[in-house]
Order: sequence, then structure tokens, then C-alpha cells
Amino acid sequence: MGKPITPMVVVDTIIEVDGGIVLIKRKNFPHGWALPGGCVDVGETCEAAAIREAEEETGLKVENVEFLGIYDDPDRDPRGHAVSAAYICTANGTPVAADDAVDSKVVNPHDVGDLCFDHNVIIRHYLVWKTCEESL
Amino acid sequence: MGKPITPMVVVDTIIEVDGGIVLIKRKNFPHGWALPGGCVDVGETCEAAAIREAEEETGLKVENVEFLGIYDDPDRDPRGHAVSAAYICTANGTPVAADDAVDSKVVNPHDVGDLCFDHNVIIRHYLVWKTCEESL
Repeated sequence: MGKPITPMVVVDTIIEVDGGIVLIKRKNFPHGWALPGGCVDVGETCEAAAIREAEEETGLKVENVEFLGIYDDPDRDPRGHAVSAAYICTANGTPVAADDAVDSKVVNPHDVGDLCFDHNVIIRHYLVWKTCEESL
Repeated sequence: MGKPITPMVVVDTIIEVDGGIVLIKRKNFPHGWALPGGCVDVGETCEAAAIREAEEETGLKVENVEFLGIYDDPDRDPRGHAVSAAYICTANGTPVAADDAVDSKVVNPHDVGDLCFDHNVIIRHYLVWKTCEESL
């Protein structure tokens, strides 16, 4: 019996920097602004993938990585079913787009515009998380 | 460019029934006792896979499904890297082993013995979750 076919595993990162969060403009389809992220490699934990992808796409070395949730709607990625583990993290410095990103910016998380995939949903959950965290 | 190769996506379920949790004896390698679970199908959410796999392997219709966490150690599955979404749920009735399970039993979660994969870790986290839940 061959290996079962399952959805892909990807990560998305909310990078807190300078009072905002980082968005990247995607080089590849689907085009538009999005959270930094990408595929998890075989042999790599999701958290390690999040740290790697954040640096590859923004040049930022992230830390204080916390798991936010999984996002698994079969229609969330127009290229095929991808289950995403989303992480919140922090960084210092200015993002510089690279790899699969052609541009980057730091934005107010309350005002991100329309993003690719389900990234507006992820950011909504991040804002709930942030409100809870600040009330601790 | 072909589709990227990522780890597989699987689910594990902690099914609370009659004051214990359900274990199944695996038909296939790795042999031994384990939590019910299996691969997520493309087009299926992880929660839907958890409900489906629980019923396929134990005959139990589970409800009150809650996400516990992701388990993504590259070495957790000797057959290859599989990222698991673990769920807690409840059911009524007696488990009846079927599909990939050759036997089943309801056990005290504090006394499960050595299980396959990282299922002892998942159950340890479940016991922490349960203690927190009961203190609410």
C-alpha cells in the first residue's frame, strides 16, 4: 500500500514588530498581501518551519514563538488543501522582502485590508488572543 | 513545479466514555495499544477526520469535540513524519474494535501502560487539560 495522501502541512506567522505586524506581498499565486509562511519540510517541526519561513521571507529572526491555532478549511488555499499551524512571534528590525515575497510592510493589525487565504480570520483570532493576553 | 512534499496530517482522539478513555489495539505496524486515529483526507477538516476515525475504529459516535494540540515531532511515527491534531471528545456506549483496530478497551487515563507513538505524551497533556477544566 502506498503512502496515504493527506492535506499538506503549512505554517503562517504573525510577527509583532514595532507595534504592528508584518505582511508580505506574494510573488506567486495567489497574489496579494498575506502573512509570512510556507510549507513545513519533512523532518521539521511546525514551530521550526515558522521560524525558518519568517526569516526567509522577511529577513527577521523571530522569537517568543507561541502557537495560535490550526486552520484547516479545505478551501482556504486555492492551490489545494493545506492545514496551517499559525504562530505568533516577535522580532526587532525592519522586514526586507525575499524568497517568495516581493514586498513587505508593518501594519496595524486592526487595519490589514483584504488578505490572501484565510489570513483575515487568523488575524481576527490573534486580536482576540492579544486582548486576553493583555488582560492577564 | 510539483506539489511540495510535507509531513502527513493525521488525527488522534481521546474519547471519554464511562469515566475512562478508549484505547485500541493496532492491526498494523506499529503494533500495540494506542489512541484511535488516522489520516486526514484531502477535503476534510481535522475535526471531521477525528469524528470519522473514532467511529471507524471503535463504533462510537463522538461529540463535544475539543482541540487539544498539535504533535509534530518528526520521530513520533516510525512510518514517517506525521503531524497530528489531537482532539478530546465524549461518547456513550461500549467501543467495538473495527477497521485498523483488532481490540479495544476503556481504561483509567492515569494508568494506560506504554502506548504507540507519542500517545503517552498526548494523554499527559489531556490530564493537565482535564485538571484545568475541572477547576473552572
